[in-house]
Amino acid sequence: MAAVFPRLSRQGLKATVRWLRSHRASPPAVCGVGCSLTSSALPGLVAHKQIRRVHGKRDEADPAGGAASRRLPFSTVSQQDLDFFNRLLPGRTITDPDLLESSNVDWLKSVRGSSEVLLRPESTEEVSQILRYCNERRLAVNPQGGNTGLVGGSVPVFDEIILSTALMNRVLSFDHVSGILTCQAGCVLENLSSYLEERDYIMPLDLGAKGSCHIGGNVATNAGGLRLLRYGSLRGTVLGLEVVLADGKILNCLATLRKDNTGYDLKQLFIGSEGTLGVITAVSILCPRKPRAVNVAFLGCSTFQQLLETFQRCRGMLGEILSAFEFLDSACMRLLEKHLKLVNPITESPFYIVIETAGSNAAHDEEKLHSFLEEVMESSLVTDGTVATEEAKIKALWALRERVTEALTHDGYTYKYDISLPVEKIYQLVTDMREHLGDRAKNVVGYGHVGDGNLHLNITSPAKDPALLAAIEPYVYEWTAACRGSISAEHGLGLKKKNYIHFSKAPEAVALMGDIKSMLDPRGILNPYKTLPDSLH
Amino acid sequence: MAAVFPRLSRQGLKATVRWLRSHRASPPAVCGVGCSLTSSALPGLVAHKQIRRVHGKRDEADPAGGAASRRLPFSTVSQQDLDFFNRLLPGRTITDPDLLESSNVDWLKSVRGSSEVLLRPESTEEVSQILRYCNERRLAVNPQGGNTGLVGGSVPVFDEIILSTALMNRVLSFDHVSGILTCQAGCVLENLSSYLEERDYIMPLDLGAKGSCHIGGNVATNAGGLRLLRYGSLRGTVLGLEVVLADGKILNCLATLRKDNTGYDLKQLFIGSEGTLGVITAVSILCPRKPRAVNVAFLGCSTFQQLLETFQRCRGMLGEILSAFEFLDSACMRLLEKHLKLVNPITESPFYIVIETAGSNAAHDEEKLHSFLEEVMESSLVTDGTVATEEAKIKALWALRERVTEALTHDGYTYKYDISLPVEKIYQLVTDMREHLGDRAKNVVGYGHVGDGNLHLNITSPAKDPALLAAIEPYVYEWTAACRGSISAEHGLGLKKKNYIHFSKAPEAVALMGDIKSMLDPRGILNPYKTLPDSLH
Repeated sequence: MAAVFPRLSRQGLKATVRWLRSHRASPPAVCGVGCSLTSSALPGLVAHKQIRRVHGKRDEADPAGGAASRRLPFSTVSQQDLDFFNRLLPGRTITDPDLLESSNVDWLKSVRGSSEVLLRPESTEEVSQILRYCNERRLAVNPQGGNTGLVGGSVPVFDEIILSTALMNRVLSFDHVSGILTCQAGCVLENLSSYLEERDYIMPLDLGAKGSCHIGGNVATNAGGLRLLRYGSLRGTVLGLEVVLADGKILNCLATLRKDNTGYDLKQLFIGSEGTLGVITAVSILCPRKPRAVNVAFLGCSTFQQLLETFQRCRGMLGEILSAFEFLDSACMRLLEKHLKLVNPITESPFYIVIETAGSNAAHDEEKLHSFLEEVMESSLVTDGTVATEEAKIKALWALRERVTEALTHDGYTYKYDISLPVEKIYQLVTDMREHLGDRAKNVVGYGHVGDGNLHLNITSPAKDPALLAAIEPYVYEWTAACRGSISAEHGLGLKKKNYIHFSKAPEAVALMGDIKSMLDPRGILNPYKTLPDSLH
Repeated sequence: MAAVFPRLSRQGLKATVRWLRSHRASPPAVCGVGCSLTSSALPGLVAHKQIRRVHGKRDEADPAGGAASRRLPFSTVSQQDLDFFNRLLPGRTITDPDLLESSNVDWLKSVRGSSEVLLRPESTEEVSQILRYCNERRLAVNPQGGNTGLVGGSVPVFDEIILSTALMNRVLSFDHVSGILTCQAGCVLENLSSYLEERDYIMPLDLGAKGSCHIGGNVATNAGGLRLLRYGSLRGTVLGLEVVLADGKILNCLATLRKDNTGYDLKQLFIGSEGTLGVITAVSILCPRKPRAVNVAFLGCSTFQQLLETFQRCRGMLGEILSAFEFLDSACMRLLEKHLKLVNPITESPFYIVIETAGSNAAHDEEKLHSFLEEVMESSLVTDGTVATEEAKIKALWALRERVTEALTHDGYTYKYDISLPVEKIYQLVTDMREHLGDRAKNVVGYGHVGDGNLHLNITSPAKDPALLAAIEPYVYEWTAACRGSISAEHGLGLKKKNYIHFSKAPEAVALMGDIKSMLDPRGILNPYKTLPDSLH
């Protein structure tokens, strides 16, 4: 591995890059081990079941996830209801418990519902008919995309009907001039990326779960991911949505225009609403041109302060070509090595940085990157590093960042926190948490999106541990609130975090959210028990 | 002038740029004539009055703008009300009709209200007290920023109380690391730009009215402007808002985080709601680093098809450094020459393009720009052009695009349309309109933001002409709707366009907008008669 990723030296930067370019042959060993959420798609029920068997941790998933105390007074599914669904969706109304299993439990196997019906509509009209019926019958509905969410938002809590977008996976149109893609909500992100790359465009978002997650779910959760630093959030790149409301009404806001100021921007209501206000059935999104040159640098730093200083220099010197600035700590690296057998391509360091550049001129980008690397190595901000320019090597370096989530699942039960903070404070929380927990935790690790001030704090334990949880919460939320941070930067609130909303939102704001929910879903059938705190009921 | 802006030649591009760089002395004559909305601030009442006197077109402004038929049953301001306001805002409760005049009429002098009270709060708490009182008393309120809107949204229609943000003009904080600015709503955009430039940052938006418009008004109208192509819309760059609701409640969503997925993104409701849902009192916004190098090219094209082809090449070759791609037609140029005495720096052409690059490395940017210019000149897509690198010359070239609006005000009564279309269709509307109107119009001109598919179509007439208007509307809206365009790309609906919303929005969407209005402003006191169609009342 050390030979595949030559180290940077103050003299040999250019040679390094050229060397990497000339070795375009074998796929990197770094990607060859473990089951990668990134590279292996989880297209449906079967794949989910496989993964569950591999991990073999079924018993850890709580009925109702421990966060919802009582079932609300919705109707229960009757034979008459099933007859209706079978007529509407013949062969696509699933009641076999074995087939339902993977849709009842989340990817982390941390929450488990007990739904007895999974509906797989193919069209907006079918979604509309399902919701109209469920609303009239007061049947609760759990909209589900790729089921890759991390806060228990994507699975039922009790017996909600699961409405899957998996079969709504058609690209509806793509405009080669403007780069505007319109597609159904169930398109898998990675499939859209492949579709676009053939047409010289890319998706404006990218995330570790790309092989499974649906674009509708990405929009419903306002997914951030790895390219936000460069292309901004979905609130800017999503141009239009088609949404089915709780009563079955189809709201067509599927505009394909960069600008439209004719009244309120209704689509924004549904972006990030986690399926509680409507079911997104189609998305139009502005896609950037595929960059002609991409470079990835993997660097080591001795202190987080040096990492921050490197970030500042990087923003100044790479400017418009900087497309990602991510980090992981040495604890993450140890988990990657231990559980996934990945190899650290550089000298062991307390902190690692993944920097990606994407630009229109390879020579210019290389020159900018080299000036930057020379500067940070000469000033000893960075202790070691390697650079990749060709796709396979780039993927291998990215795997070191993207597969931390997966490595954690092998380390025991994981308590996950997704915190937004002023960037200079993001690692202090990890340090303080480590000290606070002492030897009660197995591992306390930090990684995330430095460019967005977004820390993923993860704490592992040999098994579920209520005493450990009590030591973590509300400590982590109070710490975050004291710094005016967000207790959920990109994962959403789902089932697990909804009752902590007050740490990040004012009471007036929470009350207004309740008013919006009542306005759009007066019977509360859409993804109940999620996002909004129990106190609103 | 021709000497100040040397022409591009296929051989002499580098020489041209170097020549321009070495001439940093005198301000360009091109900016020296006319009253520029761009460069001369309109800080308050006095400046507005001056402009009105200069233009001397008071009589053209309609009472109620011709678009609102009847006053809704709000209370009228009593002596008791005035006593309350005078106690709350001593010296800042304006009732002198002379001082009120400039706030009762819009910048275009096309609509006129008859308000008898102008309130100038300095704090959020004062705004809260004003609205609580007005809501209880059922007094209608017209929130007003810089009063630079173009659709009659910023002035009263009848006797609404004017609530001006002019004295709420303090910067609250600026974070040098993250580039996040937090300020009161009444800060003038150009002042914020100057503040940031001193700190090596820029505002993510820029528009012709920058010398007068308030950031609160920019956000309330979701202003687009000249940098949207590069930095995206305010829906992505605005990170937080403080808003006072109709009942006086203060909604504090003034986050300063790049990512926050804790519940619904309430601030989005107020962005682009034109003051009908709440009064924005403070804004936090993510600001980009000041680019180290800026270049502007002013080019001529023979056909719009060639202009579009130039745009495609430009996106490919300039990529990440492209920050604006704007156009004007020869009819605009004639108005600039005639009314503002500006000089065309290049050979007369049917179409003119303004291209701006902004990047972190002057040598790289220059190289990219030159490769691009060489290509478009060699392939005869562009017939003539000039390039500027230093600030004064850049401003002079930009003036040719930014001051078209102003030139139009000197050409007679102007019917203004702000249309979003698939980019390949934007000029067809101008051609079709010209043919459709024949000699009934004085001038039919087109300019705008090619990069955003946004056309500004303007039709002038010696005086207001109902027959001409009947020939323009609904023709222009039907034409736009047939291409699935937006009848208001960035100006909003205000008073003038509200009843045309159905050309761009589905009935379900309009109905939902009405529900949102009722939820947030049940008594309808906030900016009544605006944005929402009369059919909703």
